[in-house]
This record gives sequence, structure tokens and C-alpha cells, in this order.
Amino acid sequence: MVDRTDFERLDAADPLAGVVGRFSLPDGLVYLDGNSLGPLPTHVPEAVSRVVVDEWGRDLIRSWNAHGWWEMPGVVGDMIAPLIGAPPGSVIAGDTTSIALYKSVAAARHLRPDRTVILSDSGNFPTDLYVLGSVAEQTDAKLVMVEPHEVGEAIDESVAVVSLTHVDYRTGRRHHMGELTGAAHRRGAMMVWDLAHSAGAMDLDIAEADMAVGCGYKYLNGGPGAPAFVYVRGDHASSLVNPISGWWGHAEPFAMSSSFVPAPGIERMQVGTQPIIALVALKSALEAFDGVDPHQLRSKSEMLTDAFIRLVEERVDAVEVVTPRQASARGSHVSLAHPEAVRVMAALIAEGVVGDVRPPNLLRFGFAPMYQLHTDVWDAVETIERVLAEERWRDFAFSSHTVT
Amino acid sequence: MVDRTDFERLDAADPLAGVVGRFSLPDGLVYLDGNSLGPLPTHVPEAVSRVVVDEWGRDLIRSWNAHGWWEMPGVVGDMIAPLIGAPPGSVIAGDTTSIALYKSVAAARHLRPDRTVILSDSGNFPTDLYVLGSVAEQTDAKLVMVEPHEVGEAIDESVAVVSLTHVDYRTGRRHHMGELTGAAHRRGAMMVWDLAHSAGAMDLDIAEADMAVGCGYKYLNGGPGAPAFVYVRGDHASSLVNPISGWWGHAEPFAMSSSFVPAPGIERMQVGTQPIIALVALKSALEAFDGVDPHQLRSKSEMLTDAFIRLVEERVDAVEVVTPRQASARGSHVSLAHPEAVRVMAALIAEGVVGDVRPPNLLRFGFAPMYQLHTDVWDAVETIERVLAEERWRDFAFSSHTVT
Repeated sequence: MVDRTDFERLDAADPLAGVVGRFSLPDGLVYLDGNSLGPLPTHVPEAVSRVVVDEWGRDLIRSWNAHGWWEMPGVVGDMIAPLIGAPPGSVIAGDTTSIALYKSVAAARHLRPDRTVILSDSGNFPTDLYVLGSVAEQTDAKLVMVEPHEVGEAIDESVAVVSLTHVDYRTGRRHHMGELTGAAHRRGAMMVWDLAHSAGAMDLDIAEADMAVGCGYKYLNGGPGAPAFVYVRGDHASSLVNPISGWWGHAEPFAMSSSFVPAPGIERMQVGTQPIIALVALKSALEAFDGVDPHQLRSKSEMLTDAFIRLVEERVDAVEVVTPRQASARGSHVSLAHPEAVRVMAALIAEGVVGDVRPPNLLRFGFAPMYQLHTDVWDAVETIERVLAEERWRDFAFSSHTVT
Repeated sequence: MVDRTDFERLDAADPLAGVVGRFSLPDGLVYLDGNSLGPLPTHVPEAVSRVVVDEWGRDLIRSWNAHGWWEMPGVVGDMIAPLIGAPPGSVIAGDTTSIALYKSVAAARHLRPDRTVILSDSGNFPTDLYVLGSVAEQTDAKLVMVEPHEVGEAIDESVAVVSLTHVDYRTGRRHHMGELTGAAHRRGAMMVWDLAHSAGAMDLDIAEADMAVGCGYKYLNGGPGAPAFVYVRGDHASSLVNPISGWWGHAEPFAMSSSFVPAPGIERMQVGTQPIIALVALKSALEAFDGVDPHQLRSKSEMLTDAFIRLVEERVDAVEVVTPRQASARGSHVSLAHPEAVRVMAALIAEGVVGDVRPPNLLRFGFAPMYQLHTDVWDAVETIERVLAEERWRDFAFSSHTVT
């Protein structure tokens, strides 16, 4: 038998205990939705105030040089690189995840012009599938969608690009990145990963993949709608064609030439002027990762998700755990199936446990190792058990407006 | 003969005098670069702090509904609409100007599939030309670039899309929007305007055009890299195909369906999750336009640019005014040619007059009617006269790193 004091001991022994205080979370809230919107890192308000008041307000146009605004996408990219196992100079921040994916997949498709298929799976996030559909339609390719476990076998010589999300936003199921990248490469296909539900929560080894994109506002905690990022493997950087030529991707943007010459490196994946205030918020948020080893993140993420799954299975009969029990097969969130998921989540939120819902029947709980307490796991399961045992969800109406 | 007291009297009589105080500008600075980066509106720091600390920090994920984050692009679009002469529900904010143009021109091109030409002019901003080049290449069209005064005659039945920037970023020359939109429509072409150097500085009547894009960080003062906007004429909104399908453009984004169904209205021009902090800054900046009639803006803009041109011609022999003297043929900035433009601008900035430079030889001065004083014109010309007469620019080295 375990009890809450066991979890208190785990918190006391947590090698990341000193990092938890780098985040501002409301007292008494068990926040398990950082896989949708990471919480506010404590230094962000000051950094944002500085860029708004001192840099924009006081130094105005000269801030582009004086405060490094122009270089910000690369500086932020270099802060993300070690979190995904990428070398310096291979990652750049900007735009949205959807736009980043469009640019990356179109560029990858351009390097395999004679093939006919863009391959993905049914566990991919909808916007990824929509973007892949756009690229397929514009380049006379066919988007083929298979079941997640069928991807490896479906990669053949017709496949130009394999584009997958590493961790399934619904089930938490995780693809084996190395195996599938290898399978794609053995067949001569380009491999593009979406790291939206992985970057910042675990160790990653993206370097072998051709390209990757990711999200700034989930486990990287950059704030609502924070800029996305793009990774490009070094040997591709000087041959890629960004489908949207823009002046920030030009080799000499200030020459103001009427003809486009792409920048030699990762900068060619840029298009237009980036939101500096948002980039500064993301940069400040990434400083919370100073001194954190991604392996520590994964180790804690496994402990948290493992404890949650075990406690739920011991104590809560009314739900089914849909996330893989095997740690290497899951990401950092756990989903529980319940036919009244929307109403159950409303009841949990009213009791101070915040997760979210993915229709029609999934309760989703994210465990972000940067700031999560082990006692959060205990407290969440206590609340889930009580809400379901007492059927408190019956007091709540159906409503499903939530944002990933 | 005029002197500074005449300009002081103009400031005292300025119908927009009460609006000037809505902006924070450093004391003693004559800021004539708001056409590149608008200054900080006084209420923005508080609005940004609120969204960061109270909304993101305290209310976390529920802010998407509780604080209207999800609807923000449309709310901001509706604040921009009256400034460009567009009806409510026809403008949406988001992404960058370059991305907005790519989406718009590709969508316009899609409505004229049998034509072969995308037409622009040599006065267009380079990134616009790069974007048009991308769309042309991807859709088997040819980008044809003519001289600005030749555009009207160059529109024939082969032209799918005419895409022009309303006000030339270098010379300040302004296209006649109504005439060229009419010419495009008579030939069956789609007309897409870039309002980067017009929106917020003058009255505009965009409604007849098919589409338009614009910039949030110049005369709209939304902060560095602020979100852009897209206008779509009502009758196109339900037939346009956004070249990048994304979940924010879906009719039912929260259904998380694997197939894409575009939203019925302007929302279909959206792609991915937008930077909320940047949108809040832009929204707060746009509140400075409360009660301001765009005709008042244009009237003051004409007075300021007219006075500047006349004073320069009277007092400064060493430069040539390249901006049209006729008010209806220019925007809200004035450019002066000087062979040592870069060094002259460095000297002016050292003397507290901030404009910028466009290579190789243009000194550029923006006159933003929202916050510019008439005495700014007098003080700027006094400084320009002194810097050139005393050849102070010889103390400064050549360096041309500035951002539009």
C-alpha cells in the first residue's frame, strides 16, 4: 500500500525539485494540462515588460540591432536544439506549428519529386493531416493515411515523405523515432517529425531525421500561441526550397533585391517578420531549462505517468486506461476513456484538477516533468476517484470547447 | 516666411492633438520611423501584463474561452476593418504579412486557374515579389513585373492576379487604388493589395478589391513583428481555397476530424494557433484609434508631408525630394535622395531625428498622423539642414543594417 506521504518523499528526493519553483502556478491547483498550454515561467513577465517598455518603447527601431531582435529566431532555436538532440544552428523558431509543417513537408516533397505518396497515420493531429493534404494536392502527390502500427510496413519506394507526430495527442502512444526514421531512409523517403507533444518533456534524438517541427506553447511553456520551431538536418540546409520565399529567408535581406536568393543555412526556412514579443516570452521560458538534462525529464515523466496509471488502475473502476503501460511506448500524458468524458472533466476542473478532453470519450492528463509534483499524481487520482464514485459529473452539462 | 511658432500653432489647433498623448515617445526624440516600427501606445504595457500574468499565469487553459483568446484574430480584424474601409467580418489578423500575402495570392490565383500571369511592379516590397514568385512557380504562372506607371496598361486577359503595394516603401509614391482595382476587374483579374505602408495613416477604400493584406507593426503600432491582417471581399469568403489548410480554418475545429472542411467565412484564411500575447498588444494598440476618423488622419498626413517637402525644398539644397509633390500621389512618408544617405541618417539619429535609409541613396521619413507633431517637421528640417550644411555625416561610417 502506498499513501500520500510516499509521494511527498518522492517530491523531496526529486532531482528537478529546484526547477519546479521556476514556474508560477496558482495555489491549490493541480494543473495537468501543460501538454496543451504550459504554465507561466516566473521570469517571463519581467522579460516581456522589458521588451515592451524598454526596448520597443524607449529604443524603438534601433532595438532590431541593439537588442538582438533580428537574430532572435536563431537564438531561440539554439536554446531548443539541445532539448531535441539537435546540434547548434539546426533549429529556428517562428511562425505557427501548422505553417512550419507546411514549409517543411513541401520542402521535403520537393527533394523527392518523382515519388507519389505522402504517408501519415490516423493518430496524427488533425491540422497535420490538413497541411499534408494541402501539400499533396499542390504537388500531385497522394496523402496515404494508415493505422499507427502499420506505418513501418507502409513505407515503400513510392513514398516521398513520411510525416508523423511523435506522441499521439489523444492516446499518448509514442512512435519509435529511430526505427521509423531508419525505415524511411532505407526506402529513400524523407522523414519529418512533429514534436509538439514531446519537446520539453523527454530526451529526443532528432538528429537523424531530415526535418522536424514543434510547438512553443506546450511543454516548452512559451505562452499561448508561442512561435513554433523547425529543425533541418545540416546536409539539407543548403539545398532545401522553402515553398514560401520571404525576405527573412533571403541571403541578404537588406540588399532589398527584387530577386530571391535563399540564405545558406537554416535561416532559409524563415519567411516574414516574426513576433518579437512572443519570441522574447519563449526565450525567457526556455531559460527555465538551464541546467536540466532531458534524460532527467524523461525519467521523471516515466515515474509520474507510471504512478498515475497504476493508481488509476488500482482505485478507479469506471475508466479505462488507453495509454500504453510500457513506458517506452508512451509520451508524457495519459488518457482515460469514460463515456461522459466532457462532464467528468468539468467536474474535475471544479474540484481543482485541470486536464482536458478529446472527443468523444477521452480524459487527458499531461505530466510535465519541469514543474509537476509527485503529489499532483496522488491528489489527481484522489479527486478522479471521488468525482466518479459520487457521480459528481452529473451536475455538469455537456460542453466541449477546449484548445489543444 | 514661416518659423517654429507657426508649427506650434498648428499643433495647438490639431484636431488629433488629444490622440498624440496615447503614445509613449522618449522626450526630445523626433521619431519619423513609424512607417517601419510604430511607437508604443501607452496602454499596451498594462494590456500585455494582464494577458501574461492574469490570463496565462492565473487562468491558464481556460483563458481560451474566458478571455476570448480564440476569437482574438476576428476581434482585432474588426478593429482594423474601419481603418481600411472594410465591413465587419471581412478582416482577420494573424501570421506575418508575407504569409498573409502567400495565402491571399495563392487563393486568388486558384480562382483564375486558366490564366497565366501574376502581375506586379518594380516598386513592390521585395518580400512581396519573392512571395509572388513562389506562387507563380507552384501554379504554372509567370510573374510579370512592370514599372509602377505601366501597371494599368499591362493588365490584360492573361492576368490572373494583380498584386501591388499601395504605397511604395522607397519613394512614397501611391497607386490609385480605385482605378487599378477597376482596371483589373474590367479584364477579369483578381486584385490583391498590400496595405503595409497605408493602413493607419490615411483613409482607404478597400471594399471593391478582392483581397488585401497589411502589416500590424507600422502605422497600426502593434509592436515589433505584430500579426498581419487579411481582408477578403464578402462574396469570395465562401469560395476561397486557403493554400494551407489548418485547424484554425476548419468549420468545426474542435470536432478534430481527419478531413478538412473550411469555415464558411473569413476564418478559413486562418491556419494555426496564433500568438495571443502579440494579438493582445495589437488589440490594445488599435484602441488608440478609438474615435479617430481616417479622413482626419489623411488630412493631417497631407499637412505634415506637404510642410516637410516645402521646407526641405526651401532650405536644403543637398538633397532631392523623390516623393511626389501631389498629395494624392503619395503616402505618408517622404524620401530624400543623397549619395551618402546611410552616413547622413547616422548623423541625424545622433542628433535625435530618427528616420531610416533605403539603399542605395534614400533617406526615408515617416509622418504618422496619430502621434506626429507639426513641430516635428520643423525640428527635423532644421536638423537635416544643419547636418548637411556642416557635413556632420563625415564623422559616421557606412553601415546599413535597418529593418523595414
